[in-house]
Amino acid sequence: MMRTRPLKVALLGCGVVGSEVARIMTTHADDLTARIGAPVELAGIAVRRPDRVRRGVPAELITTDATALVKRGDIDVVVEVIGGIEPVRTLITTAFEHGASVVSANKALLAADGATLHAAAVQHGVDLYYEAAVAGAIPLIRPLRESLAGDKVNRVLGIVNGTTNFILDRMDTTGAGYSEALDEATALGYAEADPTADVEGFDAAAKAAILAGIAFHTRVTIDDVHREGLTEVTAADIASAKRMGCTVKLLAICERSADGKSVTARVHPAMIPLNHPLASVREAYNAVFVEADAAGQLMFYGPGAGGAPTASAVLGDLVAACRNKLANTTGVGESAYTQLPVSPMGEVVTRYHISLDVADKPGVLAQVATVFAEHQVSIDTVRQQSRDRGTGAEGAAVEGGEASLVVVTHRAPDAALSATVAALRKLDTVRGVASIMRVEGE
Amino acid sequence: MMRTRPLKVALLGCGVVGSEVARIMTTHADDLTARIGAPVELAGIAVRRPDRVRRGVPAELITTDATALVKRGDIDVVVEVIGGIEPVRTLITTAFEHGASVVSANKALLAADGATLHAAAVQHGVDLYYEAAVAGAIPLIRPLRESLAGDKVNRVLGIVNGTTNFILDRMDTTGAGYSEALDEATALGYAEADPTADVEGFDAAAKAAILAGIAFHTRVTIDDVHREGLTEVTAADIASAKRMGCTVKLLAICERSADGKSVTARVHPAMIPLNHPLASVREAYNAVFVEADAAGQLMFYGPGAGGAPTASAVLGDLVAACRNKLANTTGVGESAYTQLPVSPMGEVVTRYHISLDVADKPGVLAQVATVFAEHQVSIDTVRQQSRDRGTGAEGAAVEGGEASLVVVTHRAPDAALSATVAALRKLDTVRGVASIMRVEGE
Repeated sequence: MMRTRPLKVALLGCGVVGSEVARIMTTHADDLTARIGAPVELAGIAVRRPDRVRRGVPAELITTDATALVKRGDIDVVVEVIGGIEPVRTLITTAFEHGASVVSANKALLAADGATLHAAAVQHGVDLYYEAAVAGAIPLIRPLRESLAGDKVNRVLGIVNGTTNFILDRMDTTGAGYSEALDEATALGYAEADPTADVEGFDAAAKAAILAGIAFHTRVTIDDVHREGLTEVTAADIASAKRMGCTVKLLAICERSADGKSVTARVHPAMIPLNHPLASVREAYNAVFVEADAAGQLMFYGPGAGGAPTASAVLGDLVAACRNKLANTTGVGESAYTQLPVSPMGEVVTRYHISLDVADKPGVLAQVATVFAEHQVSIDTVRQQSRDRGTGAEGAAVEGGEASLVVVTHRAPDAALSATVAALRKLDTVRGVASIMRVEGE
Repeated sequence: MMRTRPLKVALLGCGVVGSEVARIMTTHADDLTARIGAPVELAGIAVRRPDRVRRGVPAELITTDATALVKRGDIDVVVEVIGGIEPVRTLITTAFEHGASVVSANKALLAADGATLHAAAVQHGVDLYYEAAVAGAIPLIRPLRESLAGDKVNRVLGIVNGTTNFILDRMDTTGAGYSEALDEATALGYAEADPTADVEGFDAAAKAAILAGIAFHTRVTIDDVHREGLTEVTAADIASAKRMGCTVKLLAICERSADGKSVTARVHPAMIPLNHPLASVREAYNAVFVEADAAGQLMFYGPGAGGAPTASAVLGDLVAACRNKLANTTGVGESAYTQLPVSPMGEVVTRYHISLDVADKPGVLAQVATVFAEHQVSIDTVRQQSRDRGTGAEGAAVEGGEASLVVVTHRAPDAALSATVAALRKLDTVRGVASIMRVEGE
């Protein structure tokens, strides 16, 4: 079964991750050979800007013609770390057509059109692996797809974006506002110059789509994922969370519905209790909670980004793809047999933490409570306090002043909760809705 | 590649785990069929006591002749959940000889003689999987073996025994002594009637051997693992740990030496800082920290035992073994190419927390410090306190009385540390060594 001709690898992209992949392939060549069962060699590296200096990367392998590289015909595995939809999708399908397996770190493409890629891989009898696309070095896709293959996953709940976790962690520990924390993240290199993909939740939504598809054996694309970023999270929200014994995290949540007939996937900031394992995930770390019928609650924790951690995931997949090539087989591919539909956000059952600015007079709470009751949303706790703290009348209602009302609901469909909020806004006595945040992890 | 004849599974053992495996195979048959690509059926169940009632297990499949079952010749995969060395080793090798792959949850056998089993599996072209042997449902063996196949693991540090973690957690939260906490664990079903395998660290040592072998691509057996149980951990040790901002955990630690030329594996109680992720692992949960060159620090957390969680791991392996059977291939087997030797405990570099009862007079600290210096063990911190607290002279040395001296060392070879302790015991001014505990996770 073993053969001595080296397996040939083409690398598409040689930025932070790609150069680390190239470095490890060189420095750990002996280990890789032993683990694969044959030597593995870098046969070409496609880059856009060949003039950029890449330390430790053999200059003679550099090309700007990625298409010619994947069409060479002698390439066993293509490693794609360019990112984005096109031209990468075409490069990957071309690689498949020419008999190469593909290892990708491309969450955007997988979340947009994984089905096309998987189908093409099956058609050409090759592998498509992408452990690095979700949560960097943390083994997550392989455990979900293989280790839990005999179990029924009901929920995946995770922190899958390091930038936003860094920002929220700073807001939590220093009391800083969003902008200040974002500036710090940018200065320290945790946030990109244009942080949109991270702070608006696009990155996490792509990962949620990938995780949901694998966890529930169905197809979920980024368009199916309800997405709210963290740009509207305020220092006051974090302070409110603390008063409740919670912290705020940007969570990716994939759930099977109670009747098992549909799934949901969403990304939004949420309060989680401090004693929840995800609450203690600091800085740019990622962690993903998985709840399965038989396994119970599992958590996977580690660095969610960075050149070396992402390269670790890429190389794990590369070893698997190479081993399969040698054995003339393929690994576990897409499994979408359940064909479970993705329900809209309105059907998600969750809890709200709502902070209202209300007129400080008798009867307001009764009015507010009536609105909740009319929408069949059950209230868990209410905290009412006067805003006229300076007058010494703290906690007491003062006629004509303003008070704040903090309501935490029991679990209810998101549509009922948002309809409740819309109705509250129409009350004369409600001056404003200061914040709305979901509560998870209880 | 697909075929319609069902894959046949023989189950050896039908206790807590086995009956759960049988139940899930029945209730989740459609999912398993979809994920494997062919139906999978339970073809026989070997038990010792056929009269015992097993809910939901088809009575007609029960046999007492395990040997005949594995020799049937039509069995594709044997699931072994009996435990122990013999007759299981013979049953497994017989299964291999008759063309069956084996999924086992047997840590004792794998840690005692994994090499023989792996060699037999290779010889007969079948799989040997055993995710359930370490840390129950937590995916650990597959991530180490496959996801990290392109990385270099330097350290595995984990809580891999739920019983002892439950006992230590109770001691930590209630201040109870070891016996009291063990009684509670027994009453709640967390400890067996004979708790030796757990509390003396045999169970954890077997898991450490398996993890070390896989992590470092070498062979490690349970005899290579330095083992200390937790029977000597006192309420005073836990209190000392708290004063240091630590808690006590029974840890399995597998390390690559600094020069990379050897490995070590050990199980012993150790103090770890409260801010270490392992410190917050409560009750009977397990968690394993993995440090790798490129991936950085990863943690895997979940239920480490129990029928359903263990069955989840078994079924994940069963799906993999069945898929390989269908594809006429085998998965990743043993990888022991590094042939790294296992160094004795004396070469492990660690830190000690030593609590001494000393004569309360001037010069004692100087004497003690000299002994450390003579053994080239550097002291990190010393805390000295008088035992005559009732006299109002707290913290001050009182002539003729007794004081306690708590020394925490810097990192040093374990042999130097234990030689230091032996020399301290010989000092006239040292009345006794109250406790010694290693400090990890910093």
